[in-house]
Amino acid sequence: MPTTFPADSVGLVSAQVAEFSVPLALECGKSLPSYQLVYETYGTLNAGRSNAILICHALSGSHHAAGYHSHDDAKPGWWDTCIGPGKPIDTRHFFVVCLNNLGGCAGSTGPLSQNPETGRQYGPDFPVVTVKDWVNSQVRLADFLGIQRWAAVVGGSLGGMQALQWSISHPDRLGHAVVIASTPKLSAQNIAFNEVARRAIISDPEFHQGRYLEKNSAPRNGLMLARMVGHITYLSNVAMGEKFGRELRDQAFKFGLLDAEFQVESYLRYQGERFSQNFDANTYLLMTRVLDYFDPAADFGGDLTQALTHAKCKFLVVAFSTDWRFSPERSEELVSALVGASKCVSYAEIDAPHGHDAFLIPTQRYIDVFSSYMQRIAQEVTHAH
Amino acid sequence: MPTTFPADSVGLVSAQVAEFSVPLALECGKSLPSYQLVYETYGTLNAGRSNAILICHALSGSHHAAGYHSHDDAKPGWWDTCIGPGKPIDTRHFFVVCLNNLGGCAGSTGPLSQNPETGRQYGPDFPVVTVKDWVNSQVRLADFLGIQRWAAVVGGSLGGMQALQWSISHPDRLGHAVVIASTPKLSAQNIAFNEVARRAIISDPEFHQGRYLEKNSAPRNGLMLARMVGHITYLSNVAMGEKFGRELRDQAFKFGLLDAEFQVESYLRYQGERFSQNFDANTYLLMTRVLDYFDPAADFGGDLTQALTHAKCKFLVVAFSTDWRFSPERSEELVSALVGASKCVSYAEIDAPHGHDAFLIPTQRYIDVFSSYMQRIAQEVTHAH
Repeated sequence: MPTTFPADSVGLVSAQVAEFSVPLALECGKSLPSYQLVYETYGTLNAGRSNAILICHALSGSHHAAGYHSHDDAKPGWWDTCIGPGKPIDTRHFFVVCLNNLGGCAGSTGPLSQNPETGRQYGPDFPVVTVKDWVNSQVRLADFLGIQRWAAVVGGSLGGMQALQWSISHPDRLGHAVVIASTPKLSAQNIAFNEVARRAIISDPEFHQGRYLEKNSAPRNGLMLARMVGHITYLSNVAMGEKFGRELRDQAFKFGLLDAEFQVESYLRYQGERFSQNFDANTYLLMTRVLDYFDPAADFGGDLTQALTHAKCKFLVVAFSTDWRFSPERSEELVSALVGASKCVSYAEIDAPHGHDAFLIPTQRYIDVFSSYMQRIAQEVTHAH
Repeated sequence: MPTTFPADSVGLVSAQVAEFSVPLALECGKSLPSYQLVYETYGTLNAGRSNAILICHALSGSHHAAGYHSHDDAKPGWWDTCIGPGKPIDTRHFFVVCLNNLGGCAGSTGPLSQNPETGRQYGPDFPVVTVKDWVNSQVRLADFLGIQRWAAVVGGSLGGMQALQWSISHPDRLGHAVVIASTPKLSAQNIAFNEVARRAIISDPEFHQGRYLEKNSAPRNGLMLARMVGHITYLSNVAMGEKFGRELRDQAFKFGLLDAEFQVESYLRYQGERFSQNFDANTYLLMTRVLDYFDPAADFGGDLTQALTHAKCKFLVVAFSTDWRFSPERSEELVSALVGASKCVSYAEIDAPHGHDAFLIPTQRYIDVFSSYMQRIAQEVTHAH
């Protein structure tokens, strides 16, 4: 058991819970009578309450973005590479908040929670939420924390969509939106991959119309397949080639249909199996739908520039060269719309081999760009005092 | 019922069967005691038997490459766009042979056939075959048909791998190899997608270790998922965007987790379901393994140039700009190796939006390049007389 953590770690952290008893109206027409959000914070809120950063998580993320839950934690939070003293989101300057979104399975109200109307778990009855709904729930968390205005809302992938929605829905409540490895809407191919994932879960006989927990079961095979498909789309062809190539598990082909022959096969199976033991299938279905539905331009006749007209914050948009899930072209669409709406936007395309996963990996130029943008925000916050 | 077929169709065709009773030794160490190959022919073999073209099929193809099986056939054979009078593989000049490969489910010996050793269907006991094995079985078909030397061996995707293997294994028995939308070996990403497909089939409870037919069942869900994943990789991002965009099935979101919301979802489900009713799952497993194993350079210390040194035929290599399954870069690897081995090779990268499927679609420049190459072969064959 290590007695100390790395010097640039936020160290030991623990989750907190905020309860909300005023019903939350959702885009789908339903409403949540009450809900809780689990969150973590790192760093210290300054006297002016002006140095708060909201981190929004992606598909399989949680509120645990940085630091360790115990001294024998094998791994830190999911974005520990970017949050901590001296890191891009520098906790010596910022008060960082990260929550688990509604519908999640890490502690916030979601399919695993009790439905007050039935006394049973929500399961498949948990209403379909959207990025807009999430942002509305996050506004209440901000109110609860006494934060009138975020210095920045920051996210990668699905997290970036939330930052973007904040800028449109609540223009007065953030200074900057940092949108990393994201897109203003999914492509048909993105939706198609999500559909395969959903079909894998739904067609698993253990899915039981989403009521698997009542049967003491879970659609693990389906969730494993869903994650395997997802995992391929997170990695670049180049990264997979460099990591696995055509390396065999054994020295020669076994010529078996069912055995894993190549390293990449056993890696994917392992990742899929591990994920399927730790994640809720109904949440996975919800999260893929949140992605599919996101399209902030839709309310403005499909005109993204129009959608962004009322935004007041500044923007940093970052894309990665080998990300084929949300390619640089998708970020460029967003940047063009922002420029068209006369917004202040910085854009960087980072040359990195890791595909979509690159937003989690501290390549030098990424860290440099991200750090320097965040340092400017830290200065603004200090000078405003 | 149409009484006539299009003027550029080979018209009404029917399959023939060739029986082979001499055991075929396979690369996996096993052997097939006897087997049959089902095939079709179009056009007329000339007196010198010098105008024969072998067509090799891809993953889900069959011997039915062109023409119609009956007057009320809804669709012609799978490569009817390229085979027929006036088409690139012009049946006024060529005698065209296309077979269903060993392990297939369209009539040739495969998992659906009776295992003479047990009297039961092979099912999962059908030995794992390879491209080399297929080429060896095709050599016997050539002998059976009295064809000492093919004017050309032609194939797209997995079919192109067979053409390439012919040039290496049997250099004296073909004049040209036409390798379209193919690759000298799969990448880790390609293998990963195949692995997802296999896992989907194997983890379907109806798979029953491959003995589903004995249980009057079939892993249809698994096969559907496998096909859905495959289908995404056959289409380009661009093609999917143009075909489906984010169009909804209904006018507004239903906010249901299980319903198809977008056109692309219902299209994929439909394609997957239809395929799962017409294809054998054990064959699908075999075909994906054939793809994974293909690596003609492996016998030459990984040196593809060395592997191609003994080839004697000429080569046409064709790739498509938006094919991300087997991208132009993969064809360029092959072309570089051929140039390095001092072979005569023509290469065309065709600008086409359809992704990997482009090899089945008659875009003008593709048809022009393919036709003009094949016309040169037709002239050689005529002059040789």
